[in-house]
Amino acid sequence: MIPYLIGMVPDMPTDRIRDHAGQGATTVAAHRRRLRADRARQLADLLRHQLLTAGFPGGALPHESILATDYRASRNTVRQALDLLRAEGLVERQPGVGTVVVAQKYPHGLDRLMGLAETLREHGHVTNEVRTMGPVPAPAPVADRLRVPTGTDVLYIERLRRLGGLPLSLDLTYIPLDLGTALLDADLENTDVFRLLEAITGQRLGHAEITLEAVNADANSAAVLEAPRGAAVLMLERLTHLADGRPVDLEFIRFRGDRITMSGLLHRSL
Amino acid sequence: MIPYLIGMVPDMPTDRIRDHAGQGATTVAAHRRRLRADRARQLADLLRHQLLTAGFPGGALPHESILATDYRASRNTVRQALDLLRAEGLVERQPGVGTVVVAQKYPHGLDRLMGLAETLREHGHVTNEVRTMGPVPAPAPVADRLRVPTGTDVLYIERLRRLGGLPLSLDLTYIPLDLGTALLDADLENTDVFRLLEAITGQRLGHAEITLEAVNADANSAAVLEAPRGAAVLMLERLTHLADGRPVDLEFIRFRGDRITMSGLLHRSL
Repeated sequence: MIPYLIGMVPDMPTDRIRDHAGQGATTVAAHRRRLRADRARQLADLLRHQLLTAGFPGGALPHESILATDYRASRNTVRQALDLLRAEGLVERQPGVGTVVVAQKYPHGLDRLMGLAETLREHGHVTNEVRTMGPVPAPAPVADRLRVPTGTDVLYIERLRRLGGLPLSLDLTYIPLDLGTALLDADLENTDVFRLLEAITGQRLGHAEITLEAVNADANSAAVLEAPRGAAVLMLERLTHLADGRPVDLEFIRFRGDRITMSGLLHRSL
Repeated sequence: MIPYLIGMVPDMPTDRIRDHAGQGATTVAAHRRRLRADRARQLADLLRHQLLTAGFPGGALPHESILATDYRASRNTVRQALDLLRAEGLVERQPGVGTVVVAQKYPHGLDRLMGLAETLREHGHVTNEVRTMGPVPAPAPVADRLRVPTGTDVLYIERLRRLGGLPLSLDLTYIPLDLGTALLDADLENTDVFRLLEAITGQRLGHAEITLEAVNADANSAAVLEAPRGAAVLMLERLTHLADGRPVDLEFIRFRGDRITMSGLLHRSL
């Protein structure tokens, strides 16, 4: 039997809720807690969308009582939903002001291959702190993907990337040395590797194979990104090819989950 | 000045490392710890790629000493890298066996709009536990996106989706009621909503706008997904349209970060 739940109205008569639970008193209490938590999540997801699309003028959320009316939710559910968003670092409660948006997530496109500075141009200046740079003998998984013999030197670069001074991502990059050598003297602090590779080769980039994951930041990555240990990180692995098909840039990128979203368009037919 | 680091060889002469740190003894020690942690991350990322692409025959990683040789890393770095992967739940150390792959991440395509069961067909059977289903008055952000008047009833569905019995994602779905009513009697337990919508409308789906984020699971979502509180979750918001352009399916999907990757191809030119 499928459980039916009518509306987000928390004070609905309980006999309108039909589901598997609800035998003893303990089950009923647990069931109510679950329902409230479910509703809070449901509401938080709707508010999150508005937060991320700058849907609240001035960055201030409406008063709890207005949210409760607008979303036909109880004040308790509204509070719990705001707690969820606060735990994610998206909003803060300010005494005398109410709930305000404190985190901005920047959209990174999934429709077109672009470097970070290109992507976020309208949001501010991207600077790159080069933490490490130098040739390393390519381990097998790097060599295979960059199509060089295992053990051949490739250029390894580790960058902490910032937008408006705040850490955004930690990028680990491998580049074949014939192209990498020219990068050693380039302005990596202020320029995307993508742009530099196109300048060096006189060729446009072609395509990239990407894989996205959500992972909890390990202690060291968290410290570098100035995020709490265990913070959710959007991990992007990307192998970028030149227009002629040659793979030239293997990257492992950890984006702070609270500062980046990836957006795109999918089509049903190819 | 750019810090140069030559190779992943941890026992390299320290005079080959040039960077901003390294004045006092404390700084040197902190610097060494940082370098080791950086190298462990670098190695863990390479091993992660192999794990996820079934690059270790039989699911067993080579012995630490072999990894150390292959990756020109110290045993300490190898151990620390394996610790990182273990903390992510990807590998386990088994006494007498060594390090084995314990988690499988399933690839979800970013190149084509597909339902979960379609996508993961080759990996097993997707079952859906319908936690909640029923009409709710559409709040403004839902109504706007589904292009119905605010307050109009839409069908709300909450599903826990499993692959091979293990929780994979928690999906919150809003569907206009003219299509939603037909879903009430459909086999939602075993069928993707995408497939049902195409059957109901006699029309193919067209495209979807998607947004991906990495978030830490709140306590309730974690409990539902049988994941630790705070576990990294890949959050997908997706508005799906019919081929004729009508928006018919707004979803908020929380994928367990340790069970799903999203893969696709990006092109430089549109």
